[in-house]
Amino acid sequence: MRRVFEEELNDLHNHFFQMGKIVNEAVYKSVKAFVNHDKGLAQEVIDGDIIINKHEVDLEKRCFEMIALQQPVTTDLRKIVTIMKASADLERMGDHAVSIAKSTIRVKGNKRDYAIEAQIAEMSEKVKVMVQGVLDAYVVSDADKAKDVALSDVAVDNDFKKIYKACIKQMKSDPDIILGATDYMLVAGYIERIGDYVTNICEWIIYLNTGKVTELNTHNKNDHFLNS
Amino acid sequence: MRRVFEEELNDLHNHFFQMGKIVNEAVYKSVKAFVNHDKGLAQEVIDGDIIINKHEVDLEKRCFEMIALQQPVTTDLRKIVTIMKASADLERMGDHAVSIAKSTIRVKGNKRDYAIEAQIAEMSEKVKVMVQGVLDAYVVSDADKAKDVALSDVAVDNDFKKIYKACIKQMKSDPDIILGATDYMLVAGYIERIGDYVTNICEWIIYLNTGKVTELNTHNKNDHFLNS
Repeated sequence: MRRVFEEELNDLHNHFFQMGKIVNEAVYKSVKAFVNHDKGLAQEVIDGDIIINKHEVDLEKRCFEMIALQQPVTTDLRKIVTIMKASADLERMGDHAVSIAKSTIRVKGNKRDYAIEAQIAEMSEKVKVMVQGVLDAYVVSDADKAKDVALSDVAVDNDFKKIYKACIKQMKSDPDIILGATDYMLVAGYIERIGDYVTNICEWIIYLNTGKVTELNTHNKNDHFLNS
Repeated sequence: MRRVFEEELNDLHNHFFQMGKIVNEAVYKSVKAFVNHDKGLAQEVIDGDIIINKHEVDLEKRCFEMIALQQPVTTDLRKIVTIMKASADLERMGDHAVSIAKSTIRVKGNKRDYAIEAQIAEMSEKVKVMVQGVLDAYVVSDADKAKDVALSDVAVDNDFKKIYKACIKQMKSDPDIILGATDYMLVAGYIERIGDYVTNICEWIIYLNTGKVTELNTHNKNDHFLNS
C-alpha cells in the first residue's frame, strides 16, 4: 500500500511539473505575441488553454481520489494539498496568458509606443524567471528558494507601476494612443497578476515544508494597481 | 459515525453560507463606497477582508479533516469538494471588493463622470442579485436556478463592454478625465470578474447535483475585456 502511494505521489509530482512547464511556455508565448503583434502565436496560446485546463482537472481528480482512497495524514496529505492548490494557481496563470493573447488578437492598427512595449517585454522576462524559479523550488521542495522567488515579485510590481504611469502620461499628451495604452495597462496588469500567482505557489511550497500557511508579500498582493 | 458526519456537513454548509453573506456585503459596500467617494466605507471593506480570508482557511481546514478522517465517497465527497472550491471563489470575490475599495482610497480629486458612475452602480446591482441568487441556489442545491444565475452574467459582461467604450470615448475628448476613467475601467473590470466567480460557483452547484464538471458561459469567461 505504501509503495503504491509513493508511486502515485511521484506521478502526481511529475504531472504537476509538466503542467508548470506548459503554463510557463503559454505565458512566455502570449507576451511575445503581444509585443510582436503576432496574431498566429496568440491564437496558439488561446487554443492551447484547453490542455492546461485538462491538466488541472486531471490532477485535481487524482488528488481527491488519493485522499479518499488512501487517507493520507500530515506530510503526505500536505503534499497532495499543495499540488491541488498550486495547480489551481497554474491554471489561473494560463487564463491570464489567454487574456494577453486576446488583447493581441483585438489590436487593429492601434498607434504603438515602442518604449512601453519594451518595458512590458522586460517585465515579462522577470516573471518568466520567477515561474522557472518556482518550478525548480517545487521539484527540490526548497522553502528558502521559494521565499527568494516571492521576493522578486516586488520588482514586477514596480514595473507595473512604471508602465501604468507611462501610459497615463502618453494618453494625456496624445489621444491617438488611448486605445493602445489601455491595452498596455491591461496586459501589464495580467503579467503582474501572474507574478502574484507565482507568489501563491511559493507559499504552498513553504506550507509543504512547514505545515504553516504563510502570506508572502502581503503588501503587494491583491493590489494590482497603484496605491500611491 | 454517520450522524456525526451529517452534523459536521451541516456545520460546513452553514459556515459557507455565512461566508457568502459576508462577501456579498463586502462587494456591495465596495461599489457603494466607490460611487459615493466614501473613503471610510472603503477602508471598512479593506479591514474586513481578513475575516473573509479566515473563513476560507477555516472552511478548507475542516474540509480536509473531514476527507482524511471520514473518507467520504461519491455524493458526500462531492458536497465537501463543492464547499472547498466555492469558498475559494468567494474569497477571490472578496479580494476584488478590496481592489475596488483601494481604487476609492486612491482617488484624489480626479475629474468625475456621473453618467459612467451611474452605469457602474447599475452593473453592480446586477452582480449583487447574482450573488444572492447563487447563495439561494446553493442552500436548496438547485442546479436549474444555478444555470439561470450564470446566464445573467451575460448582461454583466455587456455592461462592462459599454462602460469600457464610454471611458475610451470620454478619454479621447477630455484628457482631464483620463486618470478617473482608467479607474472606472478597472472597477468595472473587477465587478465583471466577480460575476465570473459567481458563475464558477454555479458550476460547482451543478457538479454537486450531477457529479459532472460543466463550463457555463465559456464564451464570456476569462475574457474580461472587449473582444470585438
